[in-house]
Amino acid sequence: MGSERVSGSGMAKNTHMRWRLPFVCLLWEVAMVVLFGVFVRFDPEADAHWKAEQQQQNVTSDIENDFYFRYPSFQDVHVMIFVGFGFLMTFLQRYGFGAVGFNFLFAAFGIQWALLMQGWFHSFENGKILIGVENLINADFCVGSVCIAFGAILGKTSPVQLLVLTLFQVTLFAVNEYILLNLLHVKDAGGSMTIHTFGAYFGLTVTRILYRPNLDQSKDKQGSVYHSDLFAMIGTLYLWMYWPSFNSAISNHGDAQHRAAINTYCSLASCVLTTVAFSSLLQKKGKLDMVHIQNATLAGGVAVGTAAEMMLTPYGSLIVGFLCGIVSTIGFVYLMPFLESKLHIQDTCGIHNLHAMPGLIGGIVGAVTAAAATEEVYGKEGLISAFDFTGDYQDRMPSVQGGFQAAGICVSLAMAVAGGAIVGAILKLPFLGDPADENCFEDDVFWEVPEDSESSSLYHMHDPALKPVTP
Amino acid sequence: MGSERVSGSGMAKNTHMRWRLPFVCLLWEVAMVVLFGVFVRFDPEADAHWKAEQQQQNVTSDIENDFYFRYPSFQDVHVMIFVGFGFLMTFLQRYGFGAVGFNFLFAAFGIQWALLMQGWFHSFENGKILIGVENLINADFCVGSVCIAFGAILGKTSPVQLLVLTLFQVTLFAVNEYILLNLLHVKDAGGSMTIHTFGAYFGLTVTRILYRPNLDQSKDKQGSVYHSDLFAMIGTLYLWMYWPSFNSAISNHGDAQHRAAINTYCSLASCVLTTVAFSSLLQKKGKLDMVHIQNATLAGGVAVGTAAEMMLTPYGSLIVGFLCGIVSTIGFVYLMPFLESKLHIQDTCGIHNLHAMPGLIGGIVGAVTAAAATEEVYGKEGLISAFDFTGDYQDRMPSVQGGFQAAGICVSLAMAVAGGAIVGAILKLPFLGDPADENCFEDDVFWEVPEDSESSSLYHMHDPALKPVTP
Amino acid sequence: MGSERVSGSGMAKNTHMRWRLPFVCLLWEVAMVVLFGVFVRFDPEADAHWKAEQQQQNVTSDIENDFYFRYPSFQDVHVMIFVGFGFLMTFLQRYGFGAVGFNFLFAAFGIQWALLMQGWFHSFENGKILIGVENLINADFCVGSVCIAFGAILGKTSPVQLLVLTLFQVTLFAVNEYILLNLLHVKDAGGSMTIHTFGAYFGLTVTRILYRPNLDQSKDKQGSVYHSDLFAMIGTLYLWMYWPSFNSAISNHGDAQHRAAINTYCSLASCVLTTVAFSSLLQKKGKLDMVHIQNATLAGGVAVGTAAEMMLTPYGSLIVGFLCGIVSTIGFVYLMPFLESKLHIQDTCGIHNLHAMPGLIGGIVGAVTAAAATEEVYGKEGLISAFDFTGDYQDRMPSVQGGFQAAGICVSLAMAVAGGAIVGAILKLPFLGDPADENCFEDDVFWEVPEDSESSSLYHMHDPALKPVTP
Repeated sequence: MGSERVSGSGMAKNTHMRWRLPFVCLLWEVAMVVLFGVFVRFDPEADAHWKAEQQQQNVTSDIENDFYFRYPSFQDVHVMIFVGFGFLMTFLQRYGFGAVGFNFLFAAFGIQWALLMQGWFHSFENGKILIGVENLINADFCVGSVCIAFGAILGKTSPVQLLVLTLFQVTLFAVNEYILLNLLHVKDAGGSMTIHTFGAYFGLTVTRILYRPNLDQSKDKQGSVYHSDLFAMIGTLYLWMYWPSFNSAISNHGDAQHRAAINTYCSLASCVLTTVAFSSLLQKKGKLDMVHIQNATLAGGVAVGTAAEMMLTPYGSLIVGFLCGIVSTIGFVYLMPFLESKLHIQDTCGIHNLHAMPGLIGGIVGAVTAAAATEEVYGKEGLISAFDFTGDYQDRMPSVQGGFQAAGICVSLAMAVAGGAIVGAILKLPFLGDPADENCFEDDVFWEVPEDSESSSLYHMHDPALKPVTP
Repeated sequence: MGSERVSGSGMAKNTHMRWRLPFVCLLWEVAMVVLFGVFVRFDPEADAHWKAEQQQQNVTSDIENDFYFRYPSFQDVHVMIFVGFGFLMTFLQRYGFGAVGFNFLFAAFGIQWALLMQGWFHSFENGKILIGVENLINADFCVGSVCIAFGAILGKTSPVQLLVLTLFQVTLFAVNEYILLNLLHVKDAGGSMTIHTFGAYFGLTVTRILYRPNLDQSKDKQGSVYHSDLFAMIGTLYLWMYWPSFNSAISNHGDAQHRAAINTYCSLASCVLTTVAFSSLLQKKGKLDMVHIQNATLAGGVAVGTAAEMMLTPYGSLIVGFLCGIVSTIGFVYLMPFLESKLHIQDTCGIHNLHAMPGLIGGIVGAVTAAAATEEVYGKEGLISAFDFTGDYQDRMPSVQGGFQAAGICVSLAMAVAGGAIVGAILKLPFLGDPADENCFEDDVFWEVPEDSESSSLYHMHDPALKPVTP
Repeated sequence: MGSERVSGSGMAKNTHMRWRLPFVCLLWEVAMVVLFGVFVRFDPEADAHWKAEQQQQNVTSDIENDFYFRYPSFQDVHVMIFVGFGFLMTFLQRYGFGAVGFNFLFAAFGIQWALLMQGWFHSFENGKILIGVENLINADFCVGSVCIAFGAILGKTSPVQLLVLTLFQVTLFAVNEYILLNLLHVKDAGGSMTIHTFGAYFGLTVTRILYRPNLDQSKDKQGSVYHSDLFAMIGTLYLWMYWPSFNSAISNHGDAQHRAAINTYCSLASCVLTTVAFSSLLQKKGKLDMVHIQNATLAGGVAVGTAAEMMLTPYGSLIVGFLCGIVSTIGFVYLMPFLESKLHIQDTCGIHNLHAMPGLIGGIVGAVTAAAATEEVYGKEGLISAFDFTGDYQDRMPSVQGGFQAAGICVSLAMAVAGGAIVGAILKLPFLGDPADENCFEDDVFWEVPEDSESSSLYHMHDPALKPVTP
């Protein structure tokens, strides 16, 4: 049976997790407990003293608690991270457990570490990190960038490697985010730059470093089966449907959240049409390819991540979605094979097409939209509020803001590539338990897999050494 | 392998999509961009000028933005359209990609076109359509009626046909809605008439026009397999759970939304019990039929679509749900075979049972509930607010309102049948690429399908010409 | 084919449902209609008179309707009950229809009966039960305890038995809840005691009474298959993601809801790490077990069900989650076999590990957190508000509150075991149609099952009497 066969070849590359995985999980979780104990407390709006504070600050109603402004969006984002990304990656015929299970594991660790890292940078008061619902959203966002990177190395890493990756990527994410939001004073509510560009180029660099020349040994497992494609569509649709919440979750209260949701809705709708068009156009027989539908349809959400809360306008959003559906689908058909054969970038889920290119486009769209902002379009107060032109930044002009936005793209790219190179090198450490080439994309290495899967999957039919279980 | 076999028979009926589908998608999306550019702008509550406007209008808090009243419901409705309807239709063993993928495609187009069509009728100010979260909900609603019609023709049409259908159905939907809501001043927040009655009879008429006498050539693919039934249950449950949001999404702020959710919750709960009862009662061995559980349990939500926001009361809702579970299940067992054999209506998903009959019941329940409204039950202000008896309609009596509601049912029916006949005729145009009879309910015609599905499905076991792949 | 074989052995134990199931469903639903007609009306905030009342009570905005405070949480809870619990139990290879379908059935009945039972105890005014969104949440909560109990007897009962169980369990739940919340004045917003401890020990007692010595006759069907494990992960993730809504849904407006969500988020994140650690640690080969990931990761949410709305603090929550992941996973590996072999408790889903032990821990954590509450931590007003130290209870000290909380655990346990024993005895009545030992965990007994499942499942390979369908 598969399990012996795998453990046999796993012995050559020691994928035995019994001591390493528990050690890392327990040690890091203990560290979280200690650090939370020292640093993390409730935000005033989540603290039992709020009742008193409410009276002092003359807040008339309980509903003005930030909880009611952001909690529904938070839950949508939460679903995107765990079900959206988790199921999107179940398309592989033999890696469903790993896709959804490892995503669950590292995201659960990542959100804790992100609460700390982002907290130190953004919510640190009198030696304490004060957390509220906005911190939860930001932590989910941060982990979103790890989910993206996971897409590039899906099926080729051990859970210990993934936890190590998460530790470093969250750290770098927080630093990059701090540079962009605080030092450059850049707007990026939906994270085209901080989440998508950073996460994707980070992941692509890591997978480049971890290049496996003999990966075609597990080529038979890199495809989908009928039902795995349907599971993946669950992920796609939840990402697609909830993306308006993603891009509006941390925007300013009121019109900004409202606008961000509408822009994203428009961009995504448009993107579906051009994805379908090019998916059909680029196949000889004109049949649609599930890989495109599962992925490229989402590019429109990525690409309005920066500008959605700005006055991008519905038709502007349609145009962005229109272009991204095309760019992303073309990326899957032409660019991905090129990246693998020429640049040795093995990108399992095609994050270059879904997150990297659309993320860059999103950064540029954001820069242009910011630079083009006028008092006429935003109103005097609206312009100040939209770009937070207050305090040190009260004299910044929109055109200057556009320049800083563009700088933000470059910083994100640089941080991603430099960080990815270092972290990729760390992940090559031999004791982290990566699977052998012929065991990639195979749950059997790290999971107890029920017997049926041997026969329900066809992959071993190509493997003459193995006989099907059924007579 | 299947793909050759299908393309062979597809050649007879040319189902090649390579030029037609991209052409339609791109052309229409370009049209959307242009029309949005000319017409669509943000609603004041989503516009950056809102901050200033808020002060003028003396709105004290950001939370009084319509976004916070409706956005959670919007997201639930969004899930119903894309995951609910999409997965509900994955029950066919070989048509999961088409069910969820085509639904995704035409809904993404439909919401854009609906924003325009509904916008011209309802949100047109100074030459511009101003869109906010309520417009997004209404666009989703409009597309819901297309999803319903899709249920009747599921598996028998090409994606180009579906896009053509969507274009026309959305247009007619908006006209019908305008007649009901504006000219007849009818209440229909959950759309028993405008969405369900209209959508279902439209779809039934279209499928009647497209009648295929030799459809039994693909009879072996019309059933479900074990896991496809579970996928369909995802759709069922999301429709069932979020239906209270559907029926309350565009009701008046406050008690009306609250009431609509409660009534719908009650009706749906009751409907499950009678569906199970009759599903068991009508089978010789008393076993439950997944088709009934997947569909008839939802009839209770359809049938309170008009009256949910009225003072239907919880027990009134229970009664409506009670009856609809029975009617719908009986429809599946007795009426559906009759419709197919005698009236030549081939209704793949049984929308006659889930949407058409319950929709009519819902219209009638709404008319009766409206006619029975009294100042005692609603309060003076409540009555005015519930039925919007203001302006031109300030003297309308509840009994008269009941009459207009009834007229609304008739108008919807007439529009659906007349429109369906015309659109059905258009869909018969030969170059739209409908599949041959023996290739209906088969993803292979329009999708790249992974190899496994040949062997995991049993359908070809009935086909002596084909040998199973496994030895 | 399976259906004959099953009906053959089903004849010995008469599982024929054709008259019994419809009879129970229809009779009980009629009873609901009558009782709702007599007793149930809208809460003032859902009644058409609200507009007038609003002015009287000087409520300035529509958004202060409780609907907007609780509806998003309600929908999340609703998803947990129907998709969360329903799909969590689809892990069995041949019992997916029963898992998700029976859960749907009894929950739909249970919420109606719970509205009445809880209404009589908590919302009864002038002879009427007044229901609003909070009642809907509480009804879902109540049914949650039945879903938990269902986990213990999954696959071994008929739908009639499940409806009988629901009738009695909901009744006892409401009594127990009344004793705790009203007589002992205990806090339990997320239901560690009232939902989890009560539900789990009730279910464990029932399954003990229904002990089947020869259950190993259907042992081949007690495992999962690859895709059934993925379906179960849908349930797991929705429970996990929405648990913050569960624990905060009925907390006080404002900071309490906010805090409850944060605490639950933290506890759950921590729990995933220790579950993974111990799942790997306790397997000889260090591979992860899907059963643990699907279940033990949720224990952290159970265990902060009482204390989440208190000032447990984020690090306190991490600690609780940390411990519960360990306890729950160890329970699956060591305790469950012991319970079955020594105490004859056959616990299909392992609810002892997921709900019983974590529920007890949650009760204890709540008691300790309450006893440790100080005015310094909560503020004077905050303390009064958090524990409702008003009216008769205005002089109760936190330490005394802790004692009452502890008493609440004992009462819940006693009610669960005593109630479970009685209800278990009732369920042994022969005419309720329980399946024979060899037909347990088998949908074929109560459902029309599509043909494919015979061959796609491997279970009959162990059964020499049956030949696979494929040649």
